[in-house]
Amino acid sequence: MSRSNILAVDAMGGDHAPEAIIAGLEIASVRHPLARFLLFGDEAVLAPLVAKTRRLKAQSTLHHAGAIVTGDMKPTVALRMRDSSMRRAIDAVHHNEAAGVISAGNTGALLALSKIVLKTMQGIDRPAMAATAPSAKGDVVMLDLGLNVVCDSRNLVEFALMGEMFAKIVLGLPAPTIGLLNVGSEEGKGNDILRAAAATLRESPIGAQFHGFIEGHDITAGTVNVIVTDGFTGNVALKTGEGAFKLVGDLLKRVFTSGPLAKAGYMLARGALRRLRELLDPRRYNGAVLLGLNGVVVKSHGGTDAEGFAHAVDVAMDMITNDFNSRIAEGLAAMDSAILATEQAGSPDV
Amino acid sequence: MSRSNILAVDAMGGDHAPEAIIAGLEIASVRHPLARFLLFGDEAVLAPLVAKTRRLKAQSTLHHAGAIVTGDMKPTVALRMRDSSMRRAIDAVHHNEAAGVISAGNTGALLALSKIVLKTMQGIDRPAMAATAPSAKGDVVMLDLGLNVVCDSRNLVEFALMGEMFAKIVLGLPAPTIGLLNVGSEEGKGNDILRAAAATLRESPIGAQFHGFIEGHDITAGTVNVIVTDGFTGNVALKTGEGAFKLVGDLLKRVFTSGPLAKAGYMLARGALRRLRELLDPRRYNGAVLLGLNGVVVKSHGGTDAEGFAHAVDVAMDMITNDFNSRIAEGLAAMDSAILATEQAGSPDV
Repeated sequence: MSRSNILAVDAMGGDHAPEAIIAGLEIASVRHPLARFLLFGDEAVLAPLVAKTRRLKAQSTLHHAGAIVTGDMKPTVALRMRDSSMRRAIDAVHHNEAAGVISAGNTGALLALSKIVLKTMQGIDRPAMAATAPSAKGDVVMLDLGLNVVCDSRNLVEFALMGEMFAKIVLGLPAPTIGLLNVGSEEGKGNDILRAAAATLRESPIGAQFHGFIEGHDITAGTVNVIVTDGFTGNVALKTGEGAFKLVGDLLKRVFTSGPLAKAGYMLARGALRRLRELLDPRRYNGAVLLGLNGVVVKSHGGTDAEGFAHAVDVAMDMITNDFNSRIAEGLAAMDSAILATEQAGSPDV
Repeated sequence: MSRSNILAVDAMGGDHAPEAIIAGLEIASVRHPLARFLLFGDEAVLAPLVAKTRRLKAQSTLHHAGAIVTGDMKPTVALRMRDSSMRRAIDAVHHNEAAGVISAGNTGALLALSKIVLKTMQGIDRPAMAATAPSAKGDVVMLDLGLNVVCDSRNLVEFALMGEMFAKIVLGLPAPTIGLLNVGSEEGKGNDILRAAAATLRESPIGAQFHGFIEGHDITAGTVNVIVTDGFTGNVALKTGEGAFKLVGDLLKRVFTSGPLAKAGYMLARGALRRLRELLDPRRYNGAVLLGLNGVVVKSHGGTDAEGFAHAVDVAMDMITNDFNSRIAEGLAAMDSAILATEQAGSPDV
């Protein structure tokens, strides 16, 4: 049987586990009728929850894992636990029993365990975290969101390659455009690392899709489909954008409860406002992917609900059914031979 | 006569100069009846414009400057122009004829000219750009917004000191709280530069106001009054936040024109919505300050209108009437003796 429809699930990770996880999987099982879920966690707790589901129980198998990686646990401690639901779910990918793993648990532990157990893909220097975000021209992909606080130009080029493939698969775009986040759009802006990464990308097999440097406001403007940056800047930009959306949302709530006229206005406009809320709903962007590991690893937000977790499962299923990792390996090979050709062409005669 | 009420104005800088500049100054002259403005620019163009104003003509003097630093001019070219309106306005500060200068022109040229003519304050390694931004708990100050793409820990400490004083003067806060922007709030997060800056700030004279590390979402949450970061991250965060506000604003416009019910709802709620729009109005945050130079230098957004320019004049007048530069010099002296004391206390006996 092909394992490309099998997802391993850490059923005990996250603030509302296991209830929100099981409820989210029940939603996901409707959307992905061919998917199979391997659930890892406390059997005594999980079995009665799964028994109550309509579809999930037919699409899932339960695997007992007695320990839990808690939210405040240090990655080094999590690494020593052999029987945690998170570890066992990752092991399932390593043992080829599942094509990917999803967890709403401790991000640091998930990254550390994934790197130790699954290892980084051949040809990729460092994994990166990617997710989608809203823009005026539809969803965009941004990476790295925090795994690599310092990056060299080769890392950024690899992020661009992985982000491009991620956008193809998750956003369904045939030729996603790519931008490097900088403090200005002119060629000379930024630092040596950014300028070197831009030079390599321009000459690369995805050079035609490379837009060049972009600025912070280009993220929500939708200037490009894929925003590439180091993990420090990406993490700050993602959280700053989320914070700005939250501020406006909170202010709007205050506006529409500020008096009887405003309340009446809200009642009339609420249908249209609901579409706005849905578009900016953080649950719609839940499911960050650790790209560049031997296996698909998806991190759900720890505080999300069933609907948010189901969205993260959507992302994971997109990644595994489209065989993201094999396609990245092909892209890397093409990139390397192109760079090799450029370097040979550019080297002086001896 | 004290020069602490005199502002030199580059009347020819910006997309809508000189009309928007003169109209903005006319608004500002009502708000600052004791201010005096030295206008630099083409006399033949400016004189008839000023003649039409009611109050500005009494509060201003015109100084002919024949050349204009254009928006796309390289700073090196601007540096060679001796008679530009921007240069002459900066010269007026250098010659002690004005306490500060304001320009809506080319940012790179303004910075280069200000550094060459006014020079960096003694004790400050590098100037930084600061501005205010909206948050759930009132306006906050953020710096550096793009002058220093790479910073060391001493730079960040100086930015904190200058930002704290800026917040006292412009926001009127008695003891502003300070946060260092990072990818997490725990002490060990980030890189060596951030950790070293945090350690110095904790032991500094403003240590009681130092909150520690903050994350991107803390900017709009208003977790601290002053957000300190390097120029790369600050520039990206500022523009990302502005982009997010713009996206929601554009979507709201679409929502409220999407049908007759939504339009009627808008009509009822428009009073309350106007307050929201005013709060997030970019013009209310116009006026970025180049801190750390021998003289107050304020950069207005190039595309702003009269109201936006008048707000930038507010910022400049706050800075010069409160004698920002003398107070920074005092703060630096206190900081240096405190650091010296710490270092001496921490050094081993020989």
